[in-house]
Amino acid sequence: MKKIVLLRHGESTWNQENRFTGWTDVDLTPQGIQEAQSAGRLLREHGFAFDIAYTSVLKRAIRTLWIVLDEMDQMWIPIQHTWRLNERHYGALQGLNKAETAAQYGDEQVLIWRRSYDVRPPALTVDDTRYAGADPRYKNLSDNDIPVTECLKDTVARFLPYWNTTIAPQVQAGKSVIIAAHGNSLRALVKYLDDISDEDILNCNIPTGVPLVYELDDNLKPIKNYYLGNLAEIQEAMQTVANQGRSSG
Amino acid sequence: MKKIVLLRHGESTWNQENRFTGWTDVDLTPQGIQEAQSAGRLLREHGFAFDIAYTSVLKRAIRTLWIVLDEMDQMWIPIQHTWRLNERHYGALQGLNKAETAAQYGDEQVLIWRRSYDVRPPALTVDDTRYAGADPRYKNLSDNDIPVTECLKDTVARFLPYWNTTIAPQVQAGKSVIIAAHGNSLRALVKYLDDISDEDILNCNIPTGVPLVYELDDNLKPIKNYYLGNLAEIQEAMQTVANQGRSSG
Repeated sequence: MKKIVLLRHGESTWNQENRFTGWTDVDLTPQGIQEAQSAGRLLREHGFAFDIAYTSVLKRAIRTLWIVLDEMDQMWIPIQHTWRLNERHYGALQGLNKAETAAQYGDEQVLIWRRSYDVRPPALTVDDTRYAGADPRYKNLSDNDIPVTECLKDTVARFLPYWNTTIAPQVQAGKSVIIAAHGNSLRALVKYLDDISDEDILNCNIPTGVPLVYELDDNLKPIKNYYLGNLAEIQEAMQTVANQGRSSG
Repeated sequence: MKKIVLLRHGESTWNQENRFTGWTDVDLTPQGIQEAQSAGRLLREHGFAFDIAYTSVLKRAIRTLWIVLDEMDQMWIPIQHTWRLNERHYGALQGLNKAETAAQYGDEQVLIWRRSYDVRPPALTVDDTRYAGADPRYKNLSDNDIPVTECLKDTVARFLPYWNTTIAPQVQAGKSVIIAAHGNSLRALVKYLDDISDEDILNCNIPTGVPLVYELDDNLKPIKNYYLGNLAEIQEAMQTVANQGRSSG
């Protein structure tokens, strides 16, 4: 039996300000740091020990992972960073808050961008300061790979090759793996593992800072999955995410 | 012209208690954390940006590196951990303080272990709780590679293959490299780069938390080297290390 742990980063400064974040590299809030510490403690108390960790190139996920590994006394394990685990790119909405977005585009349109699987928000132009192409962390990507906007379908499409070529073989080989990432890149993995429909995946709200354990068979098909921690608190956290109506992470 | 940066970790809890540390995985003190922050700020102010980082599997070096990368807003770069960058293993002296060691072995003998290139302290036995063989971070090492004691010559011998096969090719390829490690693993590199004699290397005291920059030609021969920061403070720091008479890091 194989086991992997998925962990969504704790609260970020833009979660708090209710802005669309996407690829913007904002940091954790003090509460986000506490969530990560609590996740690390839970993992340690449940006897987890990892061989390798995967995370994005965004600091809210990396810091979450660092805090977890520190709590677990596992700072020495290898960490692989990949842009393919980044949050869904939110195009021209990145940086806007809910009120600004609704004023500019209308409530109904905003709801479509948030709640549909394959409708993209307006794209950034490549001369926009928010365009990722000028950022050194993406300098080895082809122009085609640097998103100017994404729907969840796009996020799934750019994450799955990394799962298949890089993470899955490690899990197959018996390695104990943690993936510290974002609401939508983790949705991409959950959708694939549990074979969830395009429609239903939008209702799947992964709470921040709560380790989600998948037990997998030898073909990496899920046997079961469960969150670590206090069930009532987890349900409250899931409800908070659902109420927020935010899929930008 | 190639450039690499060497950084010795900041003060650890056992530096403070004046104990032989070696492979013991002790953490930074608050002062050690400040030293690392200051190193990160210096590197940022001098316009450094790294493509890849190398460090040991010991948390005082890893945390130093994490703090530096955080200060530089470069948390996303790849980090390679290797036991070959660990501090010199101090054998059966690990955990003992200076007074205990002098009482047990005599002042003269202790001086020999500290100040000779090729005399090893007494070895640990493999049933000693301090023996590294049971630690999961070393589980892929052969028994022959797990030290029970080391002289500086041994540290040089186990670090250089990693330099030659792994780090040097990255530097040759034009990558900007930082190595965050320990007093003696960095001495090993400095000895090799500057072709310092077995005798003279013992007088080379690298201060903690001060970035040491090497400019190298295309054959990785040093053109010059220099510390970043305030010269008077650096000289004071080097003197502190020399007076401490400690080579265990």
